Amino acid sequence: MYLIPHILLLVFVAFVATIQSLVQDFCVADLSLPDGPAGYPCKKSVTENDFVYHGLAAPGNTTNIINAAVTPAFSPQFPGVNGLGLSIARLDLAAGGVIPLHTHPAGSEILVVIQGTICAGFISSFENVIYFKTLNKGDVMVFPQGLLHFQLNSGNGPALGFVSFSSSNPGLQITDFALFKNDFPTELVAKTTFLDVAQIKKLKGVLGGKN
Amino acid sequence: MYLIPHILLLVFVAFVATIQSLVQDFCVADLSLPDGPAGYPCKKSVTENDFVYHGLAAPGNTTNIINAAVTPAFSPQFPGVNGLGLSIARLDLAAGGVIPLHTHPAGSEILVVIQGTICAGFISSFENVIYFKTLNKGDVMVFPQGLLHFQLNSGNGPALGFVSFSSSNPGLQITDFALFKNDFPTELVAKTTFLDVAQIKKLKGVLGGKN
Amino acid sequence: MYLIPHILLLVFVAFVATIQSLVQDFCVADLSLPDGPAGYPCKKSVTENDFVYHGLAAPGNTTNIINAAVTPAFSPQFPGVNGLGLSIARLDLAAGGVIPLHTHPAGSEILVVIQGTICAGFISSFENVIYFKTLNKGDVMVFPQGLLHFQLNSGNGPALGFVSFSSSNPGLQITDFALFKNDFPTELVAKTTFLDVAQIKKLKGVLGGKN
Amino acid sequence: MYLIPHILLLVFVAFVATIQSLVQDFCVADLSLPDGPAGYPCKKSVTENDFVYHGLAAPGNTTNIINAAVTPAFSPQFPGVNGLGLSIARLDLAAGGVIPLHTHPAGSEILVVIQGTICAGFISSFENVIYFKTLNKGDVMVFPQGLLHFQLNSGNGPALGFVSFSSSNPGLQITDFALFKNDFPTELVAKTTFLDVAQIKKLKGVLGGKN
Amino acid sequence: MYLIPHILLLVFVAFVATIQSLVQDFCVADLSLPDGPAGYPCKKSVTENDFVYHGLAAPGNTTNIINAAVTPAFSPQFPGVNGLGLSIARLDLAAGGVIPLHTHPAGSEILVVIQGTICAGFISSFENVIYFKTLNKGDVMVFPQGLLHFQLNSGNGPALGFVSFSSSNPGLQITDFALFKNDFPTELVAKTTFLDVAQIKKLKGVLGGKN
Amino acid sequence: MYLIPHILLLVFVAFVATIQSLVQDFCVADLSLPDGPAGYPCKKSVTENDFVYHGLAAPGNTTNIINAAVTPAFSPQFPGVNGLGLSIARLDLAAGGVIPLHTHPAGSEILVVIQGTICAGFISSFENVIYFKTLNKGDVMVFPQGLLHFQLNSGNGPALGFVSFSSSNPGLQITDFALFKNDFPTELVAKTTFLDVAQIKKLKGVLGGKN
Repeated sequence: MYLIPHILLLVFVAFVATIQSLVQDFCVADLSLPDGPAGYPCKKSVTENDFVYHGLAAPGNTTNIINAAVTPAFSPQFPGVNGLGLSIARLDLAAGGVIPLHTHPAGSEILVVIQGTICAGFISSFENVIYFKTLNKGDVMVFPQGLLHFQLNSGNGPALGFVSFSSSNPGLQITDFALFKNDFPTELVAKTTFLDVAQIKKLKGVLGGKN
Repeated sequence: MYLIPHILLLVFVAFVATIQSLVQDFCVADLSLPDGPAGYPCKKSVTENDFVYHGLAAPGNTTNIINAAVTPAFSPQFPGVNGLGLSIARLDLAAGGVIPLHTHPAGSEILVVIQGTICAGFISSFENVIYFKTLNKGDVMVFPQGLLHFQLNSGNGPALGFVSFSSSNPGLQITDFALFKNDFPTELVAKTTFLDVAQIKKLKGVLGGKN
Repeated sequence: MYLIPHILLLVFVAFVATIQSLVQDFCVADLSLPDGPAGYPCKKSVTENDFVYHGLAAPGNTTNIINAAVTPAFSPQFPGVNGLGLSIARLDLAAGGVIPLHTHPAGSEILVVIQGTICAGFISSFENVIYFKTLNKGDVMVFPQGLLHFQLNSGNGPALGFVSFSSSNPGLQITDFALFKNDFPTELVAKTTFLDVAQIKKLKGVLGGKN
Repeated sequence: MYLIPHILLLVFVAFVATIQSLVQDFCVADLSLPDGPAGYPCKKSVTENDFVYHGLAAPGNTTNIINAAVTPAFSPQFPGVNGLGLSIARLDLAAGGVIPLHTHPAGSEILVVIQGTICAGFISSFENVIYFKTLNKGDVMVFPQGLLHFQLNSGNGPALGFVSFSSSNPGLQITDFALFKNDFPTELVAKTTFLDVAQIKKLKGVLGGKN
Repeated sequence: MYLIPHILLLVFVAFVATIQSLVQDFCVADLSLPDGPAGYPCKKSVTENDFVYHGLAAPGNTTNIINAAVTPAFSPQFPGVNGLGLSIARLDLAAGGVIPLHTHPAGSEILVVIQGTICAGFISSFENVIYFKTLNKGDVMVFPQGLLHFQLNSGNGPALGFVSFSSSNPGLQITDFALFKNDFPTELVAKTTFLDVAQIKKLKGVLGGKN
Repeated sequence: MYLIPHILLLVFVAFVATIQSLVQDFCVADLSLPDGPAGYPCKKSVTENDFVYHGLAAPGNTTNIINAAVTPAFSPQFPGVNGLGLSIARLDLAAGGVIPLHTHPAGSEILVVIQGTICAGFISSFENVIYFKTLNKGDVMVFPQGLLHFQLNSGNGPALGFVSFSSSNPGLQITDFALFKNDFPTELVAKTTFLDVAQIKKLKGVLGGKN
C-alpha cells in the first residue's frame, strides 16, 4: 500500500499546473487570421466541438454529370486538423459515378471503401505505368503524393468511400478543370497538351472555359 | 486544329522515357531489409497489388474482454504506405466494447464512424482538460499527436470506425499494458503512478505482468 | 602579401550589408502574438538577453509529495528557442523524489545526470518492454518520442539532472494528472483503464479530480 | 600579439580530428544500394568529382516534335545532391519548342531564363486560375509544388533555361504521357477525363499507348 | 464517343468550385506582417507578377574590391518563393572576382555556370577536406548545407553563375564580415581564432569593425 | 467496481501483442551498415544499454593549447540517438580554455553551464551583429543553427557545460581548421579571406596545413 500525504501532493499539483499552462498540444485554426506556410494561427480558446466535424455525415449531392460528390474535411472546413498533418474527405459515387483524374499537390491519399465497388487507380511517372484495381467493401488503396489518380463506381448500386490525406490541406487539382474551366487560351492548351483545338473548344464550352 | 507529326513525337517520347526511368514516385517497403529512421528501403519491383490492402475488409474478433478489436494497416502490414506519411486501421466495437486509453507516439489520428455510436475523447496536457463527445455515423473526430485518447461503444449494437494516421507507422502504446503487462517492478509502478500496490498486483495478475 | 584597397572594399561591404539585412537567422518568439503550427511569430528586435535564460539556475522547490521539481525552458519561458527545434529543462529530485510516468507528445528527450543517482526508464510500445537503468553523475540516457517514461532518485542525497528535447515546445502529459486531476468521469476512467472505481476515486480525491 | 605554443595546439588538433571523423556533412548516393523514403544510402568514399556534374553543359537534342529537351541533374544522374533537398535541370527550347503540361509530384520549381524568350505558366487549384507570363533573359519564375505547368519558346530563336527544384528527386509527370503513352484503357481515360474516344485513340496512336 | 450532358456537368462544376476555394496552393509572402519559423504569412490576393522576379536580369555592380556581386532572390526580395523551400541568386564575377568564404546557415546550394570559368570549393568538417574544382560553362556544383565555401573567377573575362538554394531564405554569413566588420572585441577574435592581433586590427580597419 | 473476467482479457492481450510487434518506437543505429540522409539503419535487437551513454561522465583532457575539450555523444558515439533529432556533448574548459569559433552545419545548440563562468557568443548574419554574454552556473544559452559561435572560460577555475543539439549528428566545423589544417592552397585562402599570406602560412605551420 502506497500512502499519499494529500497536502504535499497538492503543492506539486499546483506547481505542475503552472508548467502545463505553457504547453501547446494542438493548433485549431483561427480562420480569421492570415495563414502561413505551416497553416493557420491557433485559435485561443477551444472546446470538444473544435475536434469534431459533422459535415461528412450526410451524403453529397450526386445529381450531376459525374454522378459523384467529394466532401472535404480539410483545415478550412474542419479547423481542428490544422497543423496536424492529416485530413479526410467523403466520396459518394452514384451508379456510373466517377471522380475524374486529379492530383493533390500536397499530400498522399488512402481510400477505404465503405459501400459498393470502386475501380481506382493512379499513374506513376515511372514509364507512365498505370496501377488500377477494383476494390470492394473494406478494401484499402493508397495513392502516392502528387500523382494523377481517379475513382469510379464499377458496381451497379451506389458506392461510398472515405479518403484520408497526409496533409491538413492537401489541395485538389482536377485535370479537366485546369485545362478547360478557366481562361487558359485555347492555343496554349493545344500547344502544351497536343489535344485538338476542336476537342478543347468543345470541353471549354461544356465547362465554361474561355479564350 | 493542331497537327502532330508522329515520327518526331516518338523521338521525344523515347527521350523522356529515359528521363522518367530515374524518378521515384513511391517507396513500397521491402520488409526483408533493415528499416531506418524514415522507414523501410524500397521494394525493387511493384504491381497494383502493392498499393491495395484487403486486411481491413473482415471484422476483427471482438470476443474478448474489451469486446473490441483494432486491425492496423501500417507499413509492416501494408508496405505500400511506407514513406508516404499516412496509414489506416479498422476499429470494431461490439456492444460494450472499448479501446482502452492509449497514445500513438508518432502521429495524429482522425476517426470516422461508419456504424453505431462511439464515445471518443482525448486529454490535453494543458491543465489536463478532457475533450470527449458522442459520435454518430459519419461523424469525424481528430486526436492530436501523442495525447492519451480512447474510443468506446456508447450505443446498443456493434460499432465500426476507421482511423487514419499522419504517419505510416504511428505506434500504439496502451497505458494499461505499459504498466501491467510486462516486468515493470510493482514498486516502480507504485512510485511513478501513485497507484496502490494492491491495484497494481491485481491488474498485473490479469494482464500477465510480473515483478 | 595580399593588398586590399580600402575604398573599393567598402563598396562591397555596403552592398552586402544590404543583402544581409534581409536574412533571418533566428525567430525569437513574440509571445504577444498568436502562435501557429510551427511556433510563435518572430520578435522584431532582439538583444543578447533574448538568447540567454537564467530560470534554470536556482533549484526548483522539492517540498512536495514527489520531492521533486521540473523547471522548463521551453519557448513560452525561453522565447529564444522558438523555431529552433530544441529546448531544455531542469530536474531537481530530493531524496525519494520522483518524476511520475509521463510523455512528451512532441519530442524526444535526453537526460544528463549532474548530481546524485537517478533511476530512469521508458516503456516501448513493442511488447511493452521496459528499459530502465540506474544512472550516475555524467551518465546520459535518451527517451524516444512519445513513450511513457519516468525518473526517480535512487540515491540517498539530492539528485540533479538536465533534460533536453528535440522540440522547442515538447509538451508534458503526466499520466496520473490526465486520469485523476480533471473532470474525466470516473465511469469513463474505469472503462478505459480497467482500474477499480475505488482506486480512481481515491486518486481523484488526492489530486482534485471531479466526476 | 597572441602566441601559440605549437606542440600543445597539435594535441588539440589530434583530439578534434577524432571527433570530426564521426561527422556526416553530405550523403552522396550509392546508387548500387536500394533507396529509401529519404533517398539513397551514402557512398563510402568521395572526391570533388562527386559534387560536380558536367551533364548539363551540352544542349539537349531538340530535333523532335516538341522542339525541346529537358536534361535533369536529379539524384540518379547527379548523386551528389542526394539528401540535400535540391536539384537542377536544363531546358533547351528550339524555335517553337514546348515543354508540355506536367507536374513534379515532390517539389517546387524555379526557372531562370538564360537565352531567348519563354512563355511559362502554371494553373492553381484555386478556381483553376492560370498564371502565365512571358519571360526574358535573366527573368525568374517560381512554380509551386505539384501544380500543372508548362514552358514554351515564345521568341523566334532558341531559348535556354535552368530549372531548380526543392527536392533531390522531384519526379516528372507529363500529363499527355500519363494519359496516352501507356495501357490506360481508352474507356477509362474517357470516363475520367471527358475527352472524346476519337481524340484519345488518336493520341494513343501517336504516343504508342494501347488498349 | 463519350457524350456529356452539359447542364448536369455544370452542376458538378459549381460544386467543385466551392470545394476548391478552400485550397492553398502557395503562400506568397506578405512582408508587412511578422514572419515566423516557417516563413511569412500569405498575401491575400496575388497575380502572375507575384511569381515572377526581374531583379536578376541586370548584372550586379562588380566595381568593388572583390570584383564581384551577389544578387539574391530570397523570400524578402521575391515573396513568391515563401514557404516553397527554394530560392535563387545571381553571381557576377568580373576578372579576378571572388565571393569570399561564407556559409548559408539554412540551406544547401547548387551552382550552374553560365559564362566564363569559376573555381569553386567547399570544406568538409570531416578531416577538413577541401573539395574544389574549376568549372566551365554549363557545369554544375553542389555545396552541402552549412559548410564553408567560395567561388572565384579563374578565367580572364567576366563570369556569370546562378545559385539555387534548398530554402526560401537560406541566410548568408561571410566569415570575414563575421570576424572583422562588427564590434566583436579584438581580444575575443584573437582568442577564438588564433589570428594575430595585428592581422585582426588591419582587417577591422579595412572593413569598418570596432573594438 | 469494475470487474474484469481474466480469460477474456487475455484474449485481447494476445491480440494486441500481435499488433504491437509491428511498431517501431526508436531506431538505434546499426553502425555496421551504410547510413543515409535520415541516419543509420536500425539495430535489430536492443537492450537498456543502447539508450544509455557513459562516455560523458569523465572530463575530457584539457592539457592542450586551448585548455579545453569537447566530448560528443552524437549518433556515431551514442547510437541510441539515431533518428531522434537530438544529441549532446560535454565541454570541459580549464582556466583560460576556449572552444574556437565554429559552426554546426546541421543543428541548433543549447548550452547549460554546470560549473564555473563561461563567456559564450554567436554572430548573426544580419549585419554581423555579435551576441555574447557571460554565463554562470545554471545559465542557459541558445545558438541558432549554422551560425559562428564560441565558448571560453572567463573565470579563474575550470568550467564545465553540456551542449545539446537539434540533430542526432549536427556536425562541427572549426573555422581555423577549415582554413589552416588541410591542403587548402595558401593563395586560395588569401583570395577568399583577405588574410595576409604570412598569417596564413604561420597558422598552417602550427596546425599542420599544407600548400
